Amino acid sequence: MIILVTGFEPFTPYKANPSEELARGFDGYRVGEAVVRATVLPVHHAEASARMLALLDTVRPDAVLGLGLAGSRARIALERVAVNVMDYAVPDNAGCQTQDEPCVPSGPAAYFTTLPSRTIVARLVDAGIPAYLSDTAGTYLCNQTLYTTLHAVARHDAPPRVGFMHVPPLPSMVAASGLDQPSMDLTLMRRAVEIALDVIAAG
Amino acid sequence: MIILVTGFEPFTPYKANPSEELARGFDGYRVGEAVVRATVLPVHHAEASARMLALLDTVRPDAVLGLGLAGSRARIALERVAVNVMDYAVPDNAGCQTQDEPCVPSGPAAYFTTLPSRTIVARLVDAGIPAYLSDTAGTYLCNQTLYTTLHAVARHDAPPRVGFMHVPPLPSMVAASGLDQPSMDLTLMRRAVEIALDVIAAG
Amino acid sequence: MIILVTGFEPFTPYKANPSEELARGFDGYRVGEAVVRATVLPVHHAEASARMLALLDTVRPDAVLGLGLAGSRARIALERVAVNVMDYAVPDNAGCQTQDEPCVPSGPAAYFTTLPSRTIVARLVDAGIPAYLSDTAGTYLCNQTLYTTLHAVARHDAPPRVGFMHVPPLPSMVAASGLDQPSMDLTLMRRAVEIALDVIAAG
Amino acid sequence: MIILVTGFEPFTPYKANPSEELARGFDGYRVGEAVVRATVLPVHHAEASARMLALLDTVRPDAVLGLGLAGSRARIALERVAVNVMDYAVPDNAGCQTQDEPCVPSGPAAYFTTLPSRTIVARLVDAGIPAYLSDTAGTYLCNQTLYTTLHAVARHDAPPRVGFMHVPPLPSMVAASGLDQPSMDLTLMRRAVEIALDVIAAG
Repeated sequence: MIILVTGFEPFTPYKANPSEELARGFDGYRVGEAVVRATVLPVHHAEASARMLALLDTVRPDAVLGLGLAGSRARIALERVAVNVMDYAVPDNAGCQTQDEPCVPSGPAAYFTTLPSRTIVARLVDAGIPAYLSDTAGTYLCNQTLYTTLHAVARHDAPPRVGFMHVPPLPSMVAASGLDQPSMDLTLMRRAVEIALDVIAAG
Repeated sequence: MIILVTGFEPFTPYKANPSEELARGFDGYRVGEAVVRATVLPVHHAEASARMLALLDTVRPDAVLGLGLAGSRARIALERVAVNVMDYAVPDNAGCQTQDEPCVPSGPAAYFTTLPSRTIVARLVDAGIPAYLSDTAGTYLCNQTLYTTLHAVARHDAPPRVGFMHVPPLPSMVAASGLDQPSMDLTLMRRAVEIALDVIAAG
Repeated sequence: MIILVTGFEPFTPYKANPSEELARGFDGYRVGEAVVRATVLPVHHAEASARMLALLDTVRPDAVLGLGLAGSRARIALERVAVNVMDYAVPDNAGCQTQDEPCVPSGPAAYFTTLPSRTIVARLVDAGIPAYLSDTAGTYLCNQTLYTTLHAVARHDAPPRVGFMHVPPLPSMVAASGLDQPSMDLTLMRRAVEIALDVIAAG
Repeated sequence: MIILVTGFEPFTPYKANPSEELARGFDGYRVGEAVVRATVLPVHHAEASARMLALLDTVRPDAVLGLGLAGSRARIALERVAVNVMDYAVPDNAGCQTQDEPCVPSGPAAYFTTLPSRTIVARLVDAGIPAYLSDTAGTYLCNQTLYTTLHAVARHDAPPRVGFMHVPPLPSMVAASGLDQPSMDLTLMRRAVEIALDVIAAG
């Protein structure tokens, strides 16, 4: 069983992105019969999805766990749904900013994620990690990549299960910002990803 | 040089209090020429201050760093001021709840804390720990104990410097609550206390 | 041109619902060539949608503007999307609480709303009314009714345009709660609905 | 009985200040035996207090109700205390920004306000207006003017009672900002000031 884990590069206004470090750290990770293949996606309106679609073809994962940064959330968020809209609050790393455009022009309004997100949330909370089931993945690259992935696998005969975990900023990012915002330690995020992978591998 | 560090017991609605664990962990800690004496105070309208005043007499500290829990704060808070008022939002652990009563009936409206809080905040932020200088320590036991300490030492010839650090809840406390609230790892809080003690010992 | 405006009854833990007063106040309202027919829906897992579907048949509206209460939002929210999920944080007024059930078992994951919500938001902000385009209508009755409406009209040859406006609590509701939450005056909400109706009638 | 009501000019980053409009609107207002004299203070590190001290001499008020804007508060705040510190987060309207300076170099750490703030809060909440008793008036011009007023009257034989009411931004200010912040209608703020004046006049 192969689990594809993806993170993202830093993006405006941040200098770091914990999902990048998380993804790198889990490449080659083994849990039960499963092995993780991990990669870091560019924050780019076209290349993020293109890269993901290529990985689906070459890696042929049984499950995909996307990771991304949500700047003002206090808890780990497992996403329930990806919506067919791009409405960037800030430009991507290529300077592109779109409003109210579809991720896939011909695609349906949304796809539900297919990982056992409810179970993952319950396991995280049991382990003392603040977590919840989220009803919006936003309208930036995280949502877009999640949507395009779910759209791509919708035609597969045996599609991989696909889900997404948003993480808060790191303490150092909040300290540097001077803003009154919640943060979470990388160590705790790692435990959260381990637990999610454990649920997925058992699944 | 003796630094007295105090934490508090858990109080309603919490089952834990990171300031308790922090205080216990620093008893006997050494930094430069300084040694830490640590204790955990009861969340009790009369006994917390009484215990603190006894410690001032027996320990004869050169500096006092109070630690306490602030349930909905996202960052470490160094307190600037203690105000002569008790206005408990929840009862203390003896079931006592007061409103608009003075901590010390004859006392002045407030005392400024006397530790180098601005420097501590700057050092914390430099170290990547979210922190800020706070203008209110609330009106519960943390503020009360800070006020009574500052009031007691105001008549000393060579009073110890006195300050207070509020910490967010632990992740496990937020997970258990089910609330959408910020949290902070105990490891990061420990580093924050180490940095504060380093500044105090150098001071 | 007929515009159907709907509000909701109060629901736990509230004693009032500004969307109820708003809807009642706009019944018979005229703007341009359009006339408003307004009704108040029950907060009931089955009857709210049933009532709405009956209204679509009898009123035969050209546009539907749903109104609802969002307890902790600070601004008027025009909803972008309705998702095929019911996950009630509190029971409905019949005591029914569901988790992760579809609004329509055979339905697609989501529908986009079809009113010119972006234009309405821009007009509201120009008029000095705090407003934004929201990416989640929640998973309670507001979302459910919006979803079932969009699902029902999806098969129409000339479907009415359908959208939804969430409003904050009234000041009196926040005062009664004792919570530190944002509120908005009914007068301002009325102006918001007037502006929305003006955009819809012109559309 | 003379009640002096003061508001403030707009300050960075705002183009308006509801406390200015409120103060102007209450000049000459009568309640019971009391008459209101109202003025608008400059957002200036030296002139605001100087103007207030001159007014105390010329108007000889029996009570002083300061009004000011608190950018991110959701409710009306009656201030409990003024602290002897200026720590401006943004420069005043003369471009002056201070950090950790006393309002009055020789003054005590703080003064409690002397209006019946607890009663005013209770009356506001009864009237359906979100309100609370606040433990910090900040460290900008509002706190500074409140402190210098309380310091000045502390030596009077029959000092006027002095208090302060912070108000949220107006809806139009939040709409213009694009930020997700609470607001309050001027009409509701006017009722809040009327109720406060009623309590003061009865007092």
